[in-house]
Amino acid sequence: MNKARLEAFSDGIFAIAITLLVLTISQPSNYHDLGHELASRWPSFAAYVVSFAVIGIMWLNHHSIFSHIGQVDRGLILFNLLLLLTIAFLPYPTGVFGQALREQSGTTVAAVFYSCTMAVNALAWAALWLYASTNRRLLVATFPESERHMATLLFTIGTFAYILAVGVAFLSPIASLTIQGVFAVYYALDPVSRRVARSSNLKERSS
Amino acid sequence: MNKARLEAFSDGIFAIAITLLVLTISQPSNYHDLGHELASRWPSFAAYVVSFAVIGIMWLNHHSIFSHIGQVDRGLILFNLLLLLTIAFLPYPTGVFGQALREQSGTTVAAVFYSCTMAVNALAWAALWLYASTNRRLLVATFPESERHMATLLFTIGTFAYILAVGVAFLSPIASLTIQGVFAVYYALDPVSRRVARSSNLKERSS
Amino acid sequence: MNKARLEAFSDGIFAIAITLLVLTISQPSNYHDLGHELASRWPSFAAYVVSFAVIGIMWLNHHSIFSHIGQVDRGLILFNLLLLLTIAFLPYPTGVFGQALREQSGTTVAAVFYSCTMAVNALAWAALWLYASTNRRLLVATFPESERHMATLLFTIGTFAYILAVGVAFLSPIASLTIQGVFAVYYALDPVSRRVARSSNLKERSS
Amino acid sequence: MNKARLEAFSDGIFAIAITLLVLTISQPSNYHDLGHELASRWPSFAAYVVSFAVIGIMWLNHHSIFSHIGQVDRGLILFNLLLLLTIAFLPYPTGVFGQALREQSGTTVAAVFYSCTMAVNALAWAALWLYASTNRRLLVATFPESERHMATLLFTIGTFAYILAVGVAFLSPIASLTIQGVFAVYYALDPVSRRVARSSNLKERSS
Repeated sequence: MNKARLEAFSDGIFAIAITLLVLTISQPSNYHDLGHELASRWPSFAAYVVSFAVIGIMWLNHHSIFSHIGQVDRGLILFNLLLLLTIAFLPYPTGVFGQALREQSGTTVAAVFYSCTMAVNALAWAALWLYASTNRRLLVATFPESERHMATLLFTIGTFAYILAVGVAFLSPIASLTIQGVFAVYYALDPVSRRVARSSNLKERSS
Repeated sequence: MNKARLEAFSDGIFAIAITLLVLTISQPSNYHDLGHELASRWPSFAAYVVSFAVIGIMWLNHHSIFSHIGQVDRGLILFNLLLLLTIAFLPYPTGVFGQALREQSGTTVAAVFYSCTMAVNALAWAALWLYASTNRRLLVATFPESERHMATLLFTIGTFAYILAVGVAFLSPIASLTIQGVFAVYYALDPVSRRVARSSNLKERSS
Repeated sequence: MNKARLEAFSDGIFAIAITLLVLTISQPSNYHDLGHELASRWPSFAAYVVSFAVIGIMWLNHHSIFSHIGQVDRGLILFNLLLLLTIAFLPYPTGVFGQALREQSGTTVAAVFYSCTMAVNALAWAALWLYASTNRRLLVATFPESERHMATLLFTIGTFAYILAVGVAFLSPIASLTIQGVFAVYYALDPVSRRVARSSNLKERSS
Repeated sequence: MNKARLEAFSDGIFAIAITLLVLTISQPSNYHDLGHELASRWPSFAAYVVSFAVIGIMWLNHHSIFSHIGQVDRGLILFNLLLLLTIAFLPYPTGVFGQALREQSGTTVAAVFYSCTMAVNALAWAALWLYASTNRRLLVATFPESERHMATLLFTIGTFAYILAVGVAFLSPIASLTIQGVFAVYYALDPVSRRVARSSNLKERSS
C-alpha cells in the first residue's frame, strides 16, 4: 500500500462525511409556517457550519501530517482507519446536537455527546501521530527534530483541550458548540502548523 | 498541499453533492394512487434537474478558474472550503423548494431560501476569485491581464444578479426557479468563459 | 478540462449512485416479525441487484466509449452531465419499484416509471455517442471506421429496445424488471463491445 | 480498462459504503430523555464499529490481492462488481442488526441476515480469487506459487468460517456480532497476509 492511495481513500471519506452533514438537518414538517420552521432550525444550520469547518480543517491537517510521513505500514493504516471512524461518525452527533438545541430539550446530553466524539477524535489524532513519530518510525528524514517535539506537544495539549471541552458541555451547550468552532479556527490559523505546512510545501517543491 | 489534491477533494464534494440531490425527492406515501403521487412531485423533479445543472456547471467553472491558478496557499484552501460549504448545502434548499411547490404552501419562503443560498454561493465565488486574482496573487503568469479584469467584472455582475434573484423569489417562486436554471445555462454557454476555457485548454495541451 | 478529470468525476458519480442504492430499501417497521418483514422486501433486494448491475455495466461501457474519445470539448462535458443526471436519478425509481412490488400496489406505474428512466438514459447515451462520433469529431484516429458504424447501430438498436421495454412495463412489471436485468447482462457479455474493448485495451497497452 | 481505474472505482465504493454506515443509526425520537435514547442505541454503535472495521479491513485486503494481479479482463471486472455489490449492501443488515438488538426483538433473524450477507461476501471474495489465480490467469509473474496455494487455502477456510458463523447467529446474536469483529481483527493482524503484503510492498518498491 503506497501513501498516495491511503491519502486518496482518506480524502474520499473526508469528502463524503463533510457532504453527508447536510442530511443531518431535519426536513420541515409543516410547510404552512415554513418561515418559522426554517428559522427554528438555526441550531442545525450552526451545527452544520461548525462540523463542516471541523472536518474541512481536519482534512487540511491530515495532509500536513502525511506530508511529514515517508512510509506507510499496516499499523499506520489501522490507526488511520480508527481516526476515519471518528470522523465518519461526526454527522450523527452533529444532527443530534442541532435537533436538541432546536427542541430545547436534551441539550446538555447532546453537547456532551458531541464533545466526547471530538475528544475521542483528538485521542485518535494523538495516537496516529505518536505511532508515526515515536523514534521517527515513519517520518521523512528531512522533518526537523525540533518540529517533531513541538508537534507532539501540540497534539498533547489539543487532546487535553478537547477533554476539557467535555466539561464545558456540562455547563453550557451553546458555549460548547462555540468552543468547537473556535478550536477549528485555531487549527485553521495556528501559526505553528502554518510554519510546518509551509516548510513541508517548500520541501515538496524542491524535491 | 498541491493544487491537484485540492481539486480532487473539491471534485469529490461536487460529485457527492450532485448525487445526493436525488435523496431530496420525498418517497411516495400512497402506492394505491402512485401515478398521481409521482405526477404531483414534478416540482421536486424540476428542482432536482435545476440543482443538478447548477452544481454540474459550477464544477465545470471551478476547473476553469483553477486552470488559471498557479499555486495554492492556506487562504485559498479556506476560501475554497467556504465555497464548498455552500455547494454541499444546496441539496437542503432544493428538497425544501420542491416539497413546498408540491404542497403549494410556503413557496415564497422556500424560493427566497433557495435564492439566498445561491446568493451566498455567488459571494463565495467572488471572494475566492478576488482573493486569488488581486495583485495576481496566485494566478499563472500566462493568464492575460485583460481576461482578469473581464473575469472580475463578470463575478461582480454575477453576484448582483443572484442578489436580484432573491427579489424575484419574493414575487414568483416558479419564476425564481426558472431564473436559476437560466443562470446555469448562461454559465454553461457564456462565450467569455468558453473563450477563457479554450485558451486554458490550449495552454494545457502545449505545456 | 482534460479527459482524465472528466472520467474521474464521472467515476465518482457512478460509485456514489451505485452505493446510494442501498438506501432505497425501506427499513423494517416491525421487528417482532422481522423474518416476514425482510422476506417481503425481496422485490427491493431484486431491484437493488438489477440497478447495481445496470449502473456497474454502464460504468464499464462509459470507459469503453471514452477509450475511443481523444479529446474533450464543452459540448461533450454537457452531454456527459446529462447522462450522469439520468444515472444519479436511478436510485429513486429503483426504490419506488421495489416498494410498489412489495406493497403489490402501483406496480404498473412503478415499472413504467423505471423503464422511462432507463429509456431517457438510453437516449442520453445515444446523444453522447452521436455528438462525439459524428464526422469523427472527438474520436481517436486509431478507432476503426467500421467499429464506429457498428457502435452507432448498436446505440440506435439499444435506444429502441429500451423504448420497447416501456411497453412491456405496461403489461407485466416483473417481466419489465427481468428485461432490465437481461439488458444489463447483454451489455456485460455482448461480444461486439468486448471486441471493441479488447482492441482498445491492446491499443492502450501498446501506447 | 487499466487496473488503476478499477482500483480507484473500488476504493470509491469502499469509502462511500463505510461512510454511509453512520446513516444506519436511527435518530433519537424523544429528546426529553436523550441520555437514555442514546444509551439504548449502544448496539447500533457497536454494529457501526464492527461494520466499519469489516469494510476497512476488506479495503486493505482488496489492495493486497490486487497488488498480485498483473492484468485486468472483463471477467475480473464483473467478479469485482459482484464483490462490491455485497460490500455496498452491508449498511442495510448493519442497521437492521443494531435496531433489532436495541428493540430486543427479531435479534436472531437480524443476526442470521447479517451473517448471511458476510457469507455471500466471503463467497464473492473466493470467486474473485479463484478466477484471478487459477492457472495464474491474471497473476503477476513474481507472485510465488507457494503463496498462491496458501492464499487459496485461506480463502477456502475463510468461506467455511463465515458459513459456520451463520450457524452461531442462530444460537446467539451477540456472539455472532462479536465473531464478525474477531474475524475482522484476524484479517487485520493475520501474519500470513502480512507476510504476503510485505513481500508485495517490497516488490512494488523494487519495481
